[in-house]
Amino acid sequence: MPKNPRLSRSRIGLILFGMCALVPSVYASTDGHTASLFLWIALLLIAAKISSLAVERIQQPAVLGELLIGVLLGNLGLFGINYFEAIKTDEVMAFLAQLGVVLLLFKSGLETNIDTILKVGMRAFLVACIGVIVPFGLAYFIAPLILPNLSQNTYLFLGATLTATSIGITSRVFKDLGKLNTPEAQIVLGAAVLDDVMGLVILAVVSAIVTTGTVSAGEVSWITLKAGLFLVGSIVIGQWTADYIGKKLSKIHAGESMKFTLVICFGLIFAYLAHLVGLAPIVGAFAAGLVLDKVQFEDFEDAAVHGDIQKTLIHADEELKDRVENVLEKHRHHHIENLIDPLGHFLIPLFFVLTGMQVNLHSFTNLPILATALVITALAFVSKLAAGLAAGKVNKWIVGWGMAPRGEVGLIFAMTGRGLGVVDDDMFAVIVIMITLTTLLTPPILGHLLRKAA
Amino acid sequence: MPKNPRLSRSRIGLILFGMCALVPSVYASTDGHTASLFLWIALLLIAAKISSLAVERIQQPAVLGELLIGVLLGNLGLFGINYFEAIKTDEVMAFLAQLGVVLLLFKSGLETNIDTILKVGMRAFLVACIGVIVPFGLAYFIAPLILPNLSQNTYLFLGATLTATSIGITSRVFKDLGKLNTPEAQIVLGAAVLDDVMGLVILAVVSAIVTTGTVSAGEVSWITLKAGLFLVGSIVIGQWTADYIGKKLSKIHAGESMKFTLVICFGLIFAYLAHLVGLAPIVGAFAAGLVLDKVQFEDFEDAAVHGDIQKTLIHADEELKDRVENVLEKHRHHHIENLIDPLGHFLIPLFFVLTGMQVNLHSFTNLPILATALVITALAFVSKLAAGLAAGKVNKWIVGWGMAPRGEVGLIFAMTGRGLGVVDDDMFAVIVIMITLTTLLTPPILGHLLRKAA
Repeated sequence: MPKNPRLSRSRIGLILFGMCALVPSVYASTDGHTASLFLWIALLLIAAKISSLAVERIQQPAVLGELLIGVLLGNLGLFGINYFEAIKTDEVMAFLAQLGVVLLLFKSGLETNIDTILKVGMRAFLVACIGVIVPFGLAYFIAPLILPNLSQNTYLFLGATLTATSIGITSRVFKDLGKLNTPEAQIVLGAAVLDDVMGLVILAVVSAIVTTGTVSAGEVSWITLKAGLFLVGSIVIGQWTADYIGKKLSKIHAGESMKFTLVICFGLIFAYLAHLVGLAPIVGAFAAGLVLDKVQFEDFEDAAVHGDIQKTLIHADEELKDRVENVLEKHRHHHIENLIDPLGHFLIPLFFVLTGMQVNLHSFTNLPILATALVITALAFVSKLAAGLAAGKVNKWIVGWGMAPRGEVGLIFAMTGRGLGVVDDDMFAVIVIMITLTTLLTPPILGHLLRKAA
Repeated sequence: MPKNPRLSRSRIGLILFGMCALVPSVYASTDGHTASLFLWIALLLIAAKISSLAVERIQQPAVLGELLIGVLLGNLGLFGINYFEAIKTDEVMAFLAQLGVVLLLFKSGLETNIDTILKVGMRAFLVACIGVIVPFGLAYFIAPLILPNLSQNTYLFLGATLTATSIGITSRVFKDLGKLNTPEAQIVLGAAVLDDVMGLVILAVVSAIVTTGTVSAGEVSWITLKAGLFLVGSIVIGQWTADYIGKKLSKIHAGESMKFTLVICFGLIFAYLAHLVGLAPIVGAFAAGLVLDKVQFEDFEDAAVHGDIQKTLIHADEELKDRVENVLEKHRHHHIENLIDPLGHFLIPLFFVLTGMQVNLHSFTNLPILATALVITALAFVSKLAAGLAAGKVNKWIVGWGMAPRGEVGLIFAMTGRGLGVVDDDMFAVIVIMITLTTLLTPPILGHLLRKAA
C-alpha cells in the first residue's frame, strides 16, 4: 500500500474513531446564501401573516398589513439594523416575488368569469382610456405650473408614470374582501389589463421621443399587432387548447399532481408568451386564468373523500344522498383554485412585503420634495377618480379608487425615465412618494367603500 | 407652457392617438431572465410529469422518470441543442431545487412516525456505522490496487465519497411506492440522517488532513456537540414549542393560510438552523417534519366541507352520522401533508430533473475511465449492501439497496476534493459515473424489491 508521509496509521485510527463516535461535520451541501434564503422567506412570511392579522382586526385588507410590514423591515436601516437590506436586492427573492404576482393575477383570472368581463368590456375600455388620458394630460399641462424649469421630457415621463395602474394591489383588495366578482371589480380588472396594454405604450413612444426625437409608426403598429393577437388569440385558441389537452391527458392519468402541473404550467407559459409580445407577464397570467376558468377538470377530481362518503351513504335514503351529493358538488367547483392556493400562500405575501420594502422613508423627510409629492399625489388620485366616472351604472367611487394605486408598474416607468436621464433624483423621490401613497392609501379607502356598499 | 423644440403638438397628438388605439408596448416590468425562468419551470415540470407517467407505466418509481428526463435535457448539448445549458448553472433554478429537496425531506419527516423511527434507532445506527466504515475501508484499501500511483489523499477522498447516502432519492422511491412507513424505510431514513451527521464528518477530518496535515480534537468535539444538541434539542424542544405556538396562534386566527405558513416556516427555520450547526439543511427539515408529526392543528381545521356535511346529516340517524364522521376524521389527519403537497408538486420535480441534468454523458465515452468507474460502482453497491446486513429481522436487501444512491451528497464530497486539488479530472469523472449509476440504478432495483416483498 502506498505510504503518505503526512498520514500516519494513528490518523486513520482517528478518522475511524470519528466516524463511530458520530462526529458531525461542517460541510456545505447548501451554501450560506441558500440557507439565508430559507430564513428570510420564513421571517418574511411570518411577519406578513402577523401584520395581516393585525390590520384585519381593524377591518383593513390583509394586503395593507403585508405592505406596511415591508415598509417597516425595509427601513430598519434608518435605525442601524441592516439585516434586511440584502433582501431588497436579492435576485432569488425578486424572482419569488415576481412568481408571486404572476400567481396572484392567474388566480384572479381563474376567479373571474370571462363572460362577465366581456359584458363590462366596453365600460372597462372607457375607464382605461380616460384613466390614461386624464392623468397624462394633468401631469403634462399642470405639472409645469407647479414644477417649472424642468425639461419637456421630464413632464412626459411624469405623465406616463401617472397613467399606470397596479392591478396587483387592487385585485388583492377585492380578493381580501371577497368582492372579485362584483361588476366594479370586473371593470377595474378589465380596465387595468387594457391599461397595461395601452398605458404602457406611452413608455415606448415617450422613450423613443426622448432617445431619437421621433417614433416609428411601423414599429408601433407591429407592437400593437403582436399584443392584440396575443390577447384575442390567447382567449380564443387557449379555450380550445386547454379543453383538448385537459381531455387528452385525463385519459392517461388521474391525479391531483397532474392537474396541478397542467394548471400552473399553463399560467407560466402564458406569462412567458405575454413577455414575448412585449406585455407584462401578469397580463398573460390573468389571460390564462380567464381561459382555464372555462376548462373542466372533472376527470382529474381527487375523489378520495367524496368516494368514501358515497360508499358510507350507500344504504341511506335517496333524498339524503342527493343532499350530500349537492354539498360535494358545490365544493368540487372550487377545486382548481384550492389546488394552487398553498403556492399562493407561499409566494404572494413575498411580493407585497418586497414591494413595501422598496419604499424609502428617507425621501419623506425632505419637505420641499414632500410638498411637491403631495400635490402630484392629489393629481394622481383625482385623475383616476375621473376615470371611475366612465364606469356606468355601478359604484363609480369604487372603480375610481380601484384604479388609483400605481404600485410596481409606476416604479418601472420612473426607473426607465431615470435610466434615460430625464428623471433626476428629486423627481424620482417625488414619484416614489406618489407611488407609495397611492399604493398604501388605496387598500384602506377601497376597503371602507366596499364595506359601505355591502 | 414651456416649449420643447424636439416635441411638436403633432407628436403629442400621436401619443394620444397611440393610447386610444390601444397600442401595446415593449416594456420590461419583468426582465428577460425572469420570463425565461417562467418558461424553464413550465417545460421542466411538464417534461418531468410526462416522463414520470412513462416510467410508471413500466412499473418504475416516478423519480426515475424525473432523473432520466433530466439526463436527457442536460445532454442535448451533445446534439447541438444548447437551450437547456443555462438552466444547469442558473442560481434561481438551483435555489428552487434546493427548496424542493428540503420540502421533500420535510414531507418525509411528516409522514414518518417518530416513535417508529426511535424503535428502529439502534438498527439504523448500526446500518449507518457499517455503511460508513465498509465503503471507506474498501475504497481506502482496495482502490490503491485498482488505481495505483495516486496520492493517499485521493484515496481518502474517494473513501469519503463512497460513504455518502442520498436520502432524497431513497425517500422518493419509498414515497412513490407508498412504503414510507415500513420498518425497512424507517431504518434507511434513520441511517441516512445519521449518515449525514457521521459520514460527512469525514469530509471535515479528511479536508483538515489534506490542508493542514492534522486535525484538532477540540474542533471535532465542538462540531459534534453542536450537531448533537441540534438533533436531540430540535426533537425535545421542538415538540414543546410547536405545540405551544400552535395552541397560541389557534386563538388568534383560524384559517388554512395560517396553518400553511406556520408549517412551512417551521420547516424552513429548522433547515436554516441545521445549516448553522454544520448539518445539511435537509436533515433539519426532516427533524422538523418528525416534530410536527406530533403536533395537533385541529383548531386550524378548514372545516368547510365537514361542517356542511354535518349540517346536511342533522336529521339522519346516529349510526350514519357516526360513520360519516369517521370518514371525515380519517381524512382530517392527512391535512397537514395535503396542505403542502401542491408546493411539493411544484418544487420537488425540479430538484430531481436538475440532479439528472448534472450528469455528463460525455464522461461515459472514455473507456478506461468507464472501466475504472464500473469497478468503483461495484464497490459502492457491495459496501452499502453489507450495511444492510446489520438491519436485523427485516428485508436486508431493501435496506442495503436503499442506502446505495450517493446522489448530490456524494457530488459535494467530490467537488470539495476537486477544490482542494486532490481529485483530478479523471478521478472526478470516475466519481460522477459512480454517483450516476448508484443514483439511476437504485430506483428500479428498489422498486422491484419492494413490489416483490408486497
